[in-house]
Amino acid sequence: MADQPQSKSNGQNEIVQPLLTDLYQITMAYAYWKSKKTDDYAVFDLFFRKNPFSGEFTVFAGLEECLKLIQKFRFSDSDIAYLRQILPSTIENEFYEYLKTLTTDNIKFYAVKEGTVVFPKIPLIRVEGQLVVAQLLETTLLNLVNYASLMTTNAARYRLAAGHLKLYEFGLRRAQGPDGGLSASRYSYIGGFDGTSNVLAGKLFNIPVKGTHAHAYITSFNSIDELQLITLRNNNMGSEENFVRPVLKWREKLISMFGVILSEVNDGELAAFISFAIAFPDGFMALVDTYDVKRSGLINFCAVALGLHDFGYKAIGIRLDSGDLAYLSNVARDYFEKISNEYAVPYFSRLVIMASNDINEETILSLNDQDHKIDSFGIGTHLVTCQKQPALGCVYKMVELNGEPRIKLSQDVGKVTIPGRKDVFRLYGTTHSLIDLLQKADESPPIAGQKTLCRHPFQESTRAYVIPTRVEQLLNLYWQDGQICNRLPTLEETKTHVENSLKLIRPDIKRSLNPTPYKVAVSDNLYYFLHKLWLDNAPIGELS
Amino acid sequence: MADQPQSKSNGQNEIVQPLLTDLYQITMAYAYWKSKKTDDYAVFDLFFRKNPFSGEFTVFAGLEECLKLIQKFRFSDSDIAYLRQILPSTIENEFYEYLKTLTTDNIKFYAVKEGTVVFPKIPLIRVEGQLVVAQLLETTLLNLVNYASLMTTNAARYRLAAGHLKLYEFGLRRAQGPDGGLSASRYSYIGGFDGTSNVLAGKLFNIPVKGTHAHAYITSFNSIDELQLITLRNNNMGSEENFVRPVLKWREKLISMFGVILSEVNDGELAAFISFAIAFPDGFMALVDTYDVKRSGLINFCAVALGLHDFGYKAIGIRLDSGDLAYLSNVARDYFEKISNEYAVPYFSRLVIMASNDINEETILSLNDQDHKIDSFGIGTHLVTCQKQPALGCVYKMVELNGEPRIKLSQDVGKVTIPGRKDVFRLYGTTHSLIDLLQKADESPPIAGQKTLCRHPFQESTRAYVIPTRVEQLLNLYWQDGQICNRLPTLEETKTHVENSLKLIRPDIKRSLNPTPYKVAVSDNLYYFLHKLWLDNAPIGELS
Repeated sequence: MADQPQSKSNGQNEIVQPLLTDLYQITMAYAYWKSKKTDDYAVFDLFFRKNPFSGEFTVFAGLEECLKLIQKFRFSDSDIAYLRQILPSTIENEFYEYLKTLTTDNIKFYAVKEGTVVFPKIPLIRVEGQLVVAQLLETTLLNLVNYASLMTTNAARYRLAAGHLKLYEFGLRRAQGPDGGLSASRYSYIGGFDGTSNVLAGKLFNIPVKGTHAHAYITSFNSIDELQLITLRNNNMGSEENFVRPVLKWREKLISMFGVILSEVNDGELAAFISFAIAFPDGFMALVDTYDVKRSGLINFCAVALGLHDFGYKAIGIRLDSGDLAYLSNVARDYFEKISNEYAVPYFSRLVIMASNDINEETILSLNDQDHKIDSFGIGTHLVTCQKQPALGCVYKMVELNGEPRIKLSQDVGKVTIPGRKDVFRLYGTTHSLIDLLQKADESPPIAGQKTLCRHPFQESTRAYVIPTRVEQLLNLYWQDGQICNRLPTLEETKTHVENSLKLIRPDIKRSLNPTPYKVAVSDNLYYFLHKLWLDNAPIGELS
Repeated sequence: MADQPQSKSNGQNEIVQPLLTDLYQITMAYAYWKSKKTDDYAVFDLFFRKNPFSGEFTVFAGLEECLKLIQKFRFSDSDIAYLRQILPSTIENEFYEYLKTLTTDNIKFYAVKEGTVVFPKIPLIRVEGQLVVAQLLETTLLNLVNYASLMTTNAARYRLAAGHLKLYEFGLRRAQGPDGGLSASRYSYIGGFDGTSNVLAGKLFNIPVKGTHAHAYITSFNSIDELQLITLRNNNMGSEENFVRPVLKWREKLISMFGVILSEVNDGELAAFISFAIAFPDGFMALVDTYDVKRSGLINFCAVALGLHDFGYKAIGIRLDSGDLAYLSNVARDYFEKISNEYAVPYFSRLVIMASNDINEETILSLNDQDHKIDSFGIGTHLVTCQKQPALGCVYKMVELNGEPRIKLSQDVGKVTIPGRKDVFRLYGTTHSLIDLLQKADESPPIAGQKTLCRHPFQESTRAYVIPTRVEQLLNLYWQDGQICNRLPTLEETKTHVENSLKLIRPDIKRSLNPTPYKVAVSDNLYYFLHKLWLDNAPIGELS
């Protein structure tokens, strides 16, 4: 196995355990045990029925965490003691002994590669083997896949909206709990973000971490006199020099250059910037909206940045956390360009402008339509809580038992499960994928260059012949005989896979407004199998 | 300290640590350190600006987790090693040595009692003392309070909607991660739920756990012949007897009683019910909507329940997981009542009807307007992800530094912070609380029976004299001199406190539709203090 930075212990592991489940899984286990069905051979599919965020694609994630669960699945003595306490006293003692012996050794676990773009109805995970264990895994697997996939999909959508701009996840304080915050950092990075503000996520997952200061830092200074440390090492001269004096001189120049009045420029803010620049002369990035952006924040920032320039350092840029971001970014860029020209400091025109106020996918799309000059976004609440749709609806359904197909009927066609042990193939054209095809597992796979009949699962006359240039089997075996049997990618590899997987999906399927649904089909064989089973299972009424 | 079932290690603890924060807290700490400001005496308020869910109240929660953070706040060697790796190389070595020495010994931590109903603008937490530590706590405290309070508030709203009906949290599979699921169980219980399906939450927090079986259990049986175990101990006779035969007899009677055709009644479903009843003769609760509720599920359930009755057991009831819940609950109650009368089984008319399909606050309110017969709800996604509003917007603002007030100005009046070290008092009338009053901490508290002037913080002419019958100081000191200095309630006590706290709030403030805003006022003294500071800090422009 390759070294995996993400496999460091992350606390989350602690609570991912067999008891992190719904009680009915345990009561069912007992009922199966009483009925001597525990060792029946079951096949379960994990899939979803509808893409999130009014979109037409989803990115599958959470696989590595699922495998960790499978790997360490075992009821502890204290688990058993707790279950004895809460379950009815009529439960036979041997059942608890039996529970203690359960492992995932008799389970096979198939899954789509983590980071793959996926669609409704296709199995993301197929668990097969010993009924009782396959059933006991349901809730925990769903928990691990639902939020991870939702979050990764959300991040991928932001990435598509933002194009080449930098994206940072800043959502820890608003996330759904400590681990919600950690998962948000991890999966937004996988989905296309450039980093996070979350230090622990950086430490655990080896993700780039970003951050400068908050408004509180600015407001903690009232005046320049408060500065305890006023010198900085001059990088050109190698000597420690007064840094406040040159900054104040620059500020005078800028005040007249931009027609600002001295009383409008906040001295506490300047003191805060100076002290921050002295602490981080190579990493000076300033929050400029505590007071007036145009008449205080930008003036103070530029004065300090020019001071740093004199001392042989380059400032990084600014962050805007309120107001009209498109407008203010233009004002800022204009300041930077004017200074760049006036004082021949070329990099000044390219200083970073970061925006971070209540950004969501729509804000970014709307800013795209305006003439903004923002280089990077810091995104919190909307991203990490997936505010637009905070849950993905993956389900876990039994599709076969002891070789017999199982179907869950519903008056709602969208809720009918596709029965049987199935494989999924992605059929590619020359540039993009064309269709996903579900087949019975005993059918021979579609072959590149050969005509393949693809049918709509429920609309009889909706069919098409597809001649794929390439065929990919989506489900891979990850666990059998009690061990992981497939290489797990690193976090960086998964991130790259998301990017590549998205590139193979047509743009109209990925667009934000009125996206085209991707086609998911069944083979002719599976079509007839499904519909025969449906008829066999649907009750026949009598008219009287 | 009283024994606290919820203080068992819960994994979550693992990741609640100083590094679970935004990087800018650490960069600010360095800048403070360079500026020799680390030991400045700071006061921070944690508060929110808007109640969630379009409501007019919020329930404060998360305090116990905050105190655990405060208690163990210390950077580990590996934290320091990681920070050295990611922070600029210009950072002085002594800073890392300094970070390692930091504790919360020089911090005082005040908070509203966990489970108290709270309102915008009032400080839920006040942290004071050593600036650097108070600042470093920001992100983690916000993370711990935001979701806990949101979730508790959401649960309290469901409780208000559901009246005396039972409420169970079933959301683990859709929660935002493993810990999202655990927190949801814990805080929905505190907020008014009767239990959860989450077994680990039950184990860790000593919360009642509920559950029966899933559709997969039902579909795992095809026919009665499959039953491996067909006997059950007859409680009246004390002997093991064939249980299938009496059930089949009952089913025949019921089929003719309710005019159903035998081919419509699913045999797999009956087999599943029988096997489950044999496993849980005292706890038989059946999911009746896998096939047709009226023509299969209810018939099969009643047949098994009557069989159990013959054997000296009482069934518990049914769960409905799809369809028109009001209508189906009436059908089910009608079946139960008819059987109760026909066969003189009195408790049959009171069998439990649980509903669990995509329930939210609005569904419950709408069902209230219909004539439903549901006794209890199992609630998942909407509850645990707080779908209506998945984040609470608590902020953490510096309000005083070294005795000098700090104010964050904003063009948006709602975003102006109320400066200074403040106390909060709740003024009660004879039945309900009247108003919350913010005062400067050095003012004398309002006194019961005495006229107290309460002013709107921003509208000059909005004022009222209030004569409270009782005055409650809301902020309590929980941490000083490096230890917890106030008793922490048990989970059950906090749950009771939520209930009592809500009772003291007027109904019109708690209602779902167009609730009345609760009044939060400032003292006359604080009013002038705030407005003078505002004027002093707002820049004066010049017209030219």
